[in-house]
Amino acid sequence: MMVIMHETATEAEVAHVVARVEEVGASAHISTGERVTVIGVIGDREQVTQLPLEAMPGVDRVVAILRPYKLVSREFQQRDTVIDVRGAKIGGGHFAIIAGPCSVETAEQVLAAARAVKAAGGKMLRGGAFKPRSSPYAFQGLGEDGLRMLAAARDDTGLPIVTEVMDPRDLDVVCEYADVLQVGARNTQNFLLLAELGKVAKPVLLKRGPATTIEELLMAAEYIVKEGNRDVILCERGIRTFETATRNTFDVSAVPVIKIASHLPVVVDPSHSAGRLDLVLPLSLAGVAAGADGVLVETHPNPEHALCDGPQSLPTAAFGEYAGRVLDLARWAGKTTV
Amino acid sequence: MMVIMHETATEAEVAHVVARVEEVGASAHISTGERVTVIGVIGDREQVTQLPLEAMPGVDRVVAILRPYKLVSREFQQRDTVIDVRGAKIGGGHFAIIAGPCSVETAEQVLAAARAVKAAGGKMLRGGAFKPRSSPYAFQGLGEDGLRMLAAARDDTGLPIVTEVMDPRDLDVVCEYADVLQVGARNTQNFLLLAELGKVAKPVLLKRGPATTIEELLMAAEYIVKEGNRDVILCERGIRTFETATRNTFDVSAVPVIKIASHLPVVVDPSHSAGRLDLVLPLSLAGVAAGADGVLVETHPNPEHALCDGPQSLPTAAFGEYAGRVLDLARWAGKTTV
Amino acid sequence: MMVIMHETATEAEVAHVVARVEEVGASAHISTGERVTVIGVIGDREQVTQLPLEAMPGVDRVVAILRPYKLVSREFQQRDTVIDVRGAKIGGGHFAIIAGPCSVETAEQVLAAARAVKAAGGKMLRGGAFKPRSSPYAFQGLGEDGLRMLAAARDDTGLPIVTEVMDPRDLDVVCEYADVLQVGARNTQNFLLLAELGKVAKPVLLKRGPATTIEELLMAAEYIVKEGNRDVILCERGIRTFETATRNTFDVSAVPVIKIASHLPVVVDPSHSAGRLDLVLPLSLAGVAAGADGVLVETHPNPEHALCDGPQSLPTAAFGEYAGRVLDLARWAGKTTV
Amino acid sequence: MMVIMHETATEAEVAHVVARVEEVGASAHISTGERVTVIGVIGDREQVTQLPLEAMPGVDRVVAILRPYKLVSREFQQRDTVIDVRGAKIGGGHFAIIAGPCSVETAEQVLAAARAVKAAGGKMLRGGAFKPRSSPYAFQGLGEDGLRMLAAARDDTGLPIVTEVMDPRDLDVVCEYADVLQVGARNTQNFLLLAELGKVAKPVLLKRGPATTIEELLMAAEYIVKEGNRDVILCERGIRTFETATRNTFDVSAVPVIKIASHLPVVVDPSHSAGRLDLVLPLSLAGVAAGADGVLVETHPNPEHALCDGPQSLPTAAFGEYAGRVLDLARWAGKTTV
Repeated sequence: MMVIMHETATEAEVAHVVARVEEVGASAHISTGERVTVIGVIGDREQVTQLPLEAMPGVDRVVAILRPYKLVSREFQQRDTVIDVRGAKIGGGHFAIIAGPCSVETAEQVLAAARAVKAAGGKMLRGGAFKPRSSPYAFQGLGEDGLRMLAAARDDTGLPIVTEVMDPRDLDVVCEYADVLQVGARNTQNFLLLAELGKVAKPVLLKRGPATTIEELLMAAEYIVKEGNRDVILCERGIRTFETATRNTFDVSAVPVIKIASHLPVVVDPSHSAGRLDLVLPLSLAGVAAGADGVLVETHPNPEHALCDGPQSLPTAAFGEYAGRVLDLARWAGKTTV
Repeated sequence: MMVIMHETATEAEVAHVVARVEEVGASAHISTGERVTVIGVIGDREQVTQLPLEAMPGVDRVVAILRPYKLVSREFQQRDTVIDVRGAKIGGGHFAIIAGPCSVETAEQVLAAARAVKAAGGKMLRGGAFKPRSSPYAFQGLGEDGLRMLAAARDDTGLPIVTEVMDPRDLDVVCEYADVLQVGARNTQNFLLLAELGKVAKPVLLKRGPATTIEELLMAAEYIVKEGNRDVILCERGIRTFETATRNTFDVSAVPVIKIASHLPVVVDPSHSAGRLDLVLPLSLAGVAAGADGVLVETHPNPEHALCDGPQSLPTAAFGEYAGRVLDLARWAGKTTV
Repeated sequence: MMVIMHETATEAEVAHVVARVEEVGASAHISTGERVTVIGVIGDREQVTQLPLEAMPGVDRVVAILRPYKLVSREFQQRDTVIDVRGAKIGGGHFAIIAGPCSVETAEQVLAAARAVKAAGGKMLRGGAFKPRSSPYAFQGLGEDGLRMLAAARDDTGLPIVTEVMDPRDLDVVCEYADVLQVGARNTQNFLLLAELGKVAKPVLLKRGPATTIEELLMAAEYIVKEGNRDVILCERGIRTFETATRNTFDVSAVPVIKIASHLPVVVDPSHSAGRLDLVLPLSLAGVAAGADGVLVETHPNPEHALCDGPQSLPTAAFGEYAGRVLDLARWAGKTTV
Repeated sequence: MMVIMHETATEAEVAHVVARVEEVGASAHISTGERVTVIGVIGDREQVTQLPLEAMPGVDRVVAILRPYKLVSREFQQRDTVIDVRGAKIGGGHFAIIAGPCSVETAEQVLAAARAVKAAGGKMLRGGAFKPRSSPYAFQGLGEDGLRMLAAARDDTGLPIVTEVMDPRDLDVVCEYADVLQVGARNTQNFLLLAELGKVAKPVLLKRGPATTIEELLMAAEYIVKEGNRDVILCERGIRTFETATRNTFDVSAVPVIKIASHLPVVVDPSHSAGRLDLVLPLSLAGVAAGADGVLVETHPNPEHALCDGPQSLPTAAFGEYAGRVLDLARWAGKTTV
């Protein structure tokens, strides 16, 4: 950590910062430039972080030297994390299509979607039983009934299930059915939920929130890993910007940025990023070309009758062609797709 | 709702949209321009909302005519909502300073802050016992012990307590002590929590999330009001933008925009908006001048030793001068400050 | 255009809007819902646009039905525009790598870069002679001397030259040397410059500004095309967002969005989007996979000694490998690369 | 400047950076932490800035210690700059309302607006003769005829004229008539134009662009001041964000941030920030409360017939009441308003 003092800072102010730094057991190195003094702080991260250095008189700003996360960093673990979900692998060269309807509506709908996903080479089935909705007047999901329908589709196809958990109180029931626990974009920084998920023996798919920086996403993953659960898949699904042609702005750079900074697998969600059916394929391909370990995508037997996100869902009838392109590009990029 | 068809849409596609609209009991009015056909849809909001019109062939886009919220709108209730918290009023011309430390640390610290707030003309005491922190390595709050310290400060000063609830599981214990339940910026769209708060007989202070639009904030308030709790205070605390001179960008326009669209009281949080002590006063004044019903601000007896947000906390020693300016401007703006 | 009236609008206010609309020769269709009246306006775009409908009493908002651009739209011209620059084609299935140094520094430097670009399969040479710089203390370019060095490199390699023009007063001298005139991201909405470029018989490469929407970019292109110059290449180079891991956020969605809305060729600039060398290849591949017609990329014989943008420039020694990957993916995507 | 090396950087890489730093005459101080080495660079700003340190092997990132601007900084000049425009003062405690129509349309219109501005206590008249418009199909301004109409209104009222210059080629003719030269939000970083304005003996009103950071705005002002023209007024007029309730997001924090960092006067433009008439007064008041030295606002005798920005223009009939509130608050804030 470096403390940059104001041009007008006095010697007493510099001495005061040094004293406070040493008080917590860290050491301070003063470097005096022509106009500005900089104090390098070396010591235990957790102690130093708690010092409100910016509140001290004469301090202009504080610059962090080290990343604020540790366990999820590439420095901590060089090799890629590979996650095995009932035999379906993701990360470290293994690529996965994770697909299904936005929300579970009927047993038939889920089954039709699951079979289409399986036939097209998808590795996991996604579907929402507990749905967060911006409007209190919108469909809120089937709850445990939906989970049972997902389990039935898993029995039929062998595809492991990815489903969202929104509330720590639902964790037990969701864990009973799910293979991968999804954290939605509105809960990326729901730290209580993250901490609970860190104690569970199931992989977590953590979505980036629309206003979450990549660094904050990695810190959210650190919350989970710190509690003992090392199987976290990160997901880029678009950030909020001024552009209105797409629902969110798909930040494809997040894929290589995360792959460089972390050993965790990264997938992209082109359906929620754009909110437009006609962009699902090009954005999926962009994500794969940028290095993603998988795509999370919505497909529905009859999008026009979907209770949720119909406009951006691929019809299952077109899913085979979509998946064919995506998997072909993944292989071009050197990934294993089976 | 208006459905705008593509320039290339066929008559059959137009007829199909009309048929689907009528299927749910709504009516459709076709208006054919030189190049484009527009279908006006009139009917029950909830039914029409669930139709995935944008997924239908030939549809270019759908434009909402009505606001997506109802109970919180100015159309639904013309007069301002006034909220009375143990005699402290806010809204409808009543102005309130709500102040205290970011997090409760010791009984002495809270008491010192509370007395300074009281002496300066503040109406409520704020303080965090359950703290959401971006980093799992940061101080996470004292929990129920913190709530007890807040209650002791209330006993001493008579100031009602505003404190955050993060988890539905903590709701009972927080309600035992708190007078106003705060929803933090990371939970603005935690719909399960909002629905629970809608069933509680205590006012809620709902913060805008850093990527939440004003419309979404009003829809989040609707979640609470829909369940029966009509006492919601909205809070602007900065949004995420590209500007880095401030931690967030304080969207002062949100104050008049909300006052025009809704009857609910609005406060501003200059401490979290900017993350800079030297901006707390000017941004408070900006908020008041724009029409805010109050300010939510951090003050600490010794910011340099604060465990949380020290850099942006007003020292209690300076609080009287700060509050004097703010209250004077509130009176200039026509507000009652006692 | 649709005029949505306030819920409280009077009949007289509706009649007034209709009268003003008819005054300019357009026609108005009233559609009265349960709570709100909507007035559809049909007529000549240019006349209607000039009516300040939103300033009229009782009007809530105005929704545009038609796109604000015409000549650059896919509706106006179905087939892709193919641009031929001294035999180097781009658009309509033709893919081009356009590469070279950020700024022209010496004849040797440009020549070395040009030869590397040529050897690797690049189609055009880029290089800046007139440089816009955020800081008045930074290197501002060599001006006409730089143009001469570019021309010498063209003579040697046969690669056409792409170079920026910043000022209408420089247009003549730049046209003397350049084959494609580049408009930088700070001039995307410099309408005077655009109008001048519309009168020139050379293709224009128009960069998207960091706060320009896709629709505004297309309207900027319309400024050029309207004056007679139909050869415009659009370029995505990152937008301003809250994310700080990259210099800008590369909006890869812009590629398919533009390809759907317009017939003009689109290229991506991964160098300026990210400002990081380690992201140049993955973002180039993302752009190509999303459908781009080319990449605009910086390469320098010795980035460490570059006077501009060294940190994001590919060393020419590594350019062959980079270009090999990019061209291979372009072919996978069905493009012609020669 | 601080160069932060990668955790994996070798001693040779550190030595190489040091060698390059010393090559340009600066000095390097190595500070070695447990995991990371930091190199402090002290020396001439301009030389060091040109070193592409981030391109050197082993370098993680470079942190600037000093601000990139100098002449406009508060460190360079402690006292506020006061600008005197034909006797109308702004800055250093002097407050000014600058008002008039978005674009000059007729002699009568300008004169009516000027008289209303004068009567209400405004100090300067604004009006556009050269108009930048997003659409090539919109009204582009009257040019020199418009300037003549402004001059006539000045003759009548004594109000100095503020008008935009878009093109260096128009500078002579605009200077013939104008008292203050306005740089529009699309030209904030048009460095050629800025440099020309630096050589003119008239004050410049420099608007912040919608994607310009405060630091970049100050650097743009530095371009002007560096050439000799020290009379620059900065203007906040809204930035691009995800919020759609307002046309731009009025960044009121920019006012105190600039006042702390610089000695130049700052005004706010509530008309363009929000694009909504009902927000003009509250945002004006917010700006004044935050410390602005003036407001730049649109008023039109008949907004409904305006050729430009009618929806956000105050009718001149209501201007007196508006200006009364604004000037009263300016006096509350300690400003001189005459």
